[in-house]
Amino acid sequence: MTTKNVAVFVGSLRKESFSRKFAHALRELAPASLALDIVEIGQLPLYNQDYDAAPPAEYVAFRDRVRKDDAVLFVTPEYNRSVPAVLKNAIDVGSRPYGKSVWDGKPGAIVSVSPGAVGGFGANHHLRQSLVFLNVPTMQQPEAYISGADKLLDAEGKLVNPGTREFLTKYMLAYAAWIERVAK
Amino acid sequence: MTTKNVAVFVGSLRKESFSRKFAHALRELAPASLALDIVEIGQLPLYNQDYDAAPPAEYVAFRDRVRKDDAVLFVTPEYNRSVPAVLKNAIDVGSRPYGKSVWDGKPGAIVSVSPGAVGGFGANHHLRQSLVFLNVPTMQQPEAYISGADKLLDAEGKLVNPGTREFLTKYMLAYAAWIERVAK
Amino acid sequence: MTTKNVAVFVGSLRKESFSRKFAHALRELAPASLALDIVEIGQLPLYNQDYDAAPPAEYVAFRDRVRKDDAVLFVTPEYNRSVPAVLKNAIDVGSRPYGKSVWDGKPGAIVSVSPGAVGGFGANHHLRQSLVFLNVPTMQQPEAYISGADKLLDAEGKLVNPGTREFLTKYMLAYAAWIERVAK
Amino acid sequence: MTTKNVAVFVGSLRKESFSRKFAHALRELAPASLALDIVEIGQLPLYNQDYDAAPPAEYVAFRDRVRKDDAVLFVTPEYNRSVPAVLKNAIDVGSRPYGKSVWDGKPGAIVSVSPGAVGGFGANHHLRQSLVFLNVPTMQQPEAYISGADKLLDAEGKLVNPGTREFLTKYMLAYAAWIERVAK
Repeated sequence: MTTKNVAVFVGSLRKESFSRKFAHALRELAPASLALDIVEIGQLPLYNQDYDAAPPAEYVAFRDRVRKDDAVLFVTPEYNRSVPAVLKNAIDVGSRPYGKSVWDGKPGAIVSVSPGAVGGFGANHHLRQSLVFLNVPTMQQPEAYISGADKLLDAEGKLVNPGTREFLTKYMLAYAAWIERVAK
Repeated sequence: MTTKNVAVFVGSLRKESFSRKFAHALRELAPASLALDIVEIGQLPLYNQDYDAAPPAEYVAFRDRVRKDDAVLFVTPEYNRSVPAVLKNAIDVGSRPYGKSVWDGKPGAIVSVSPGAVGGFGANHHLRQSLVFLNVPTMQQPEAYISGADKLLDAEGKLVNPGTREFLTKYMLAYAAWIERVAK
Repeated sequence: MTTKNVAVFVGSLRKESFSRKFAHALRELAPASLALDIVEIGQLPLYNQDYDAAPPAEYVAFRDRVRKDDAVLFVTPEYNRSVPAVLKNAIDVGSRPYGKSVWDGKPGAIVSVSPGAVGGFGANHHLRQSLVFLNVPTMQQPEAYISGADKLLDAEGKLVNPGTREFLTKYMLAYAAWIERVAK
Repeated sequence: MTTKNVAVFVGSLRKESFSRKFAHALRELAPASLALDIVEIGQLPLYNQDYDAAPPAEYVAFRDRVRKDDAVLFVTPEYNRSVPAVLKNAIDVGSRPYGKSVWDGKPGAIVSVSPGAVGGFGANHHLRQSLVFLNVPTMQQPEAYISGADKLLDAEGKLVNPGTREFLTKYMLAYAAWIERVAK
């Protein structure tokens, strides 16, 4: 079993993003068979189809980067009961031009993260609907809805809650198994 | 009955956007009681919560503009079975800072536009989920899912299909009535 | 202002249903302008379009009952991330035959109730999508996602949690105002 | 490669159901490696959690039947922008009692069928949300939204449209490959 490279996308740009902190925790907790690396998305201009013929350099670099990865992991807050624009933009940029999507066939997983009560359920499932179209076989179970995210981290932003660490360790093991299972 | 100012948001940036052409048609077909005006959204930087304290000039101008309007109309394609990033970004920018949303209480309507077969259903309903949170009372009926959009326009991009013109005329009458009905 | 009759639909059939207990609490906490009454739905045969010509007696009685009401309130758990079959069945039965829907135009509201963590978010929003088609103007804010429902009730099933009582009192006041606002 | 038994669920009870006719077509068009069989669901009493301890005979027979199958295929209309009650009921019945779900791990696929324009998109994706919770790895591509279903059938209800026959033949080949890919 070779190491799989997992591109991680964080759906928030703020410096102290809870989602980014959870992405770091997931990298730490993942089994040795997975190498997680955050792919930055905040620099991507808003997707415009007129760019398809002559894409901005940021689009080219982003697409080339993700195309090489084995799997895609989304760690995201919920904005207005849906996917944050910054993450949807990365999805849209990666999906084009038509027929050249970088997402096609890569095993996916979603961790939604919220300081609130409902754990980003709306963002999680809206993202899943896009991943149907993009042909990303997405892990169904376990689902990961992280509520009260701020209370699970210490002052340095490290995930300290033992129950959540245990859950996310199991989550990443299940994801590693899912990647093996659906890899072509 | 005074004229109501309706801010129109177009969910596509490409020059020959079908949605923009339909937005123009809706402005033409609307009853005299509604004054439609497209509010541009492509210039808005990707939303970042760290901007809340000192927002970019584009955010300030956008928020001031929408705050003055009486109602909000969304005309949008579907990207990857959901709302295009450019439109979700405008939604997110207008919703913040917390407690200062420009959307609150403004009567809304959605026209999804697609050259394909399913009329942007996915984008239409994902947008509706955001509008629940944003407290935008959104017209339920008629729904507007425009399929085969390219075949309804002439070479100059004008909506020429008689059935669609009739449907959208009724749609805008219903929206005018909805605005009167739910206005506080 | 006359009293409005509000039909209440409970999305669970089990005897000790949390949703039913919350429906009772909502009846108690509602302002005097609203008269809430639970409409039973467990006796309705599974909807079959072949019944449209000669409907079962249970369908006729249900439709006649709801048609007289001024507003519709749904109190429901989530089953498998969506609306329980028993509630979807009542929706489907009430919506037919084509053109004779009993739901049309009646102001609606949704309270989702769960012993789990995410407050029935999935059921809440799937139900909202149906209510678009059914032309039920549904209150957007406040949303009501009740998590940990079992811990909010006493041994007799009475809602005792002060914070939840206060929230639901405000919720019902907002709903009364919504009914006034959108009533034709 | 052994033959896989695929349980087919039809989301409509009417005698002349388009979905049932498409289920028959899918059985005919499927590759030899798949044996499709319709599992009836109209006889199942509305799910009630109080039945978990002593289930009706119909529940027992249904659960025993599906448990033996290798894969699950849903062919369904859309009722009120969501899953018909009869199909949601089968989902709910099969999912319980807690920990004894018959759906767990079985490769799934969804064909939504509609005489209307938007091809049952709402039902298709609401069903997908339930299948996340039920841990049914569901084929992402191709998606199948059948619009104008009535015009694709002949007077005997046989699927005669060549383009649709070709599409569904490819669909079933893709589903057969998906079953092989995710089978544990």
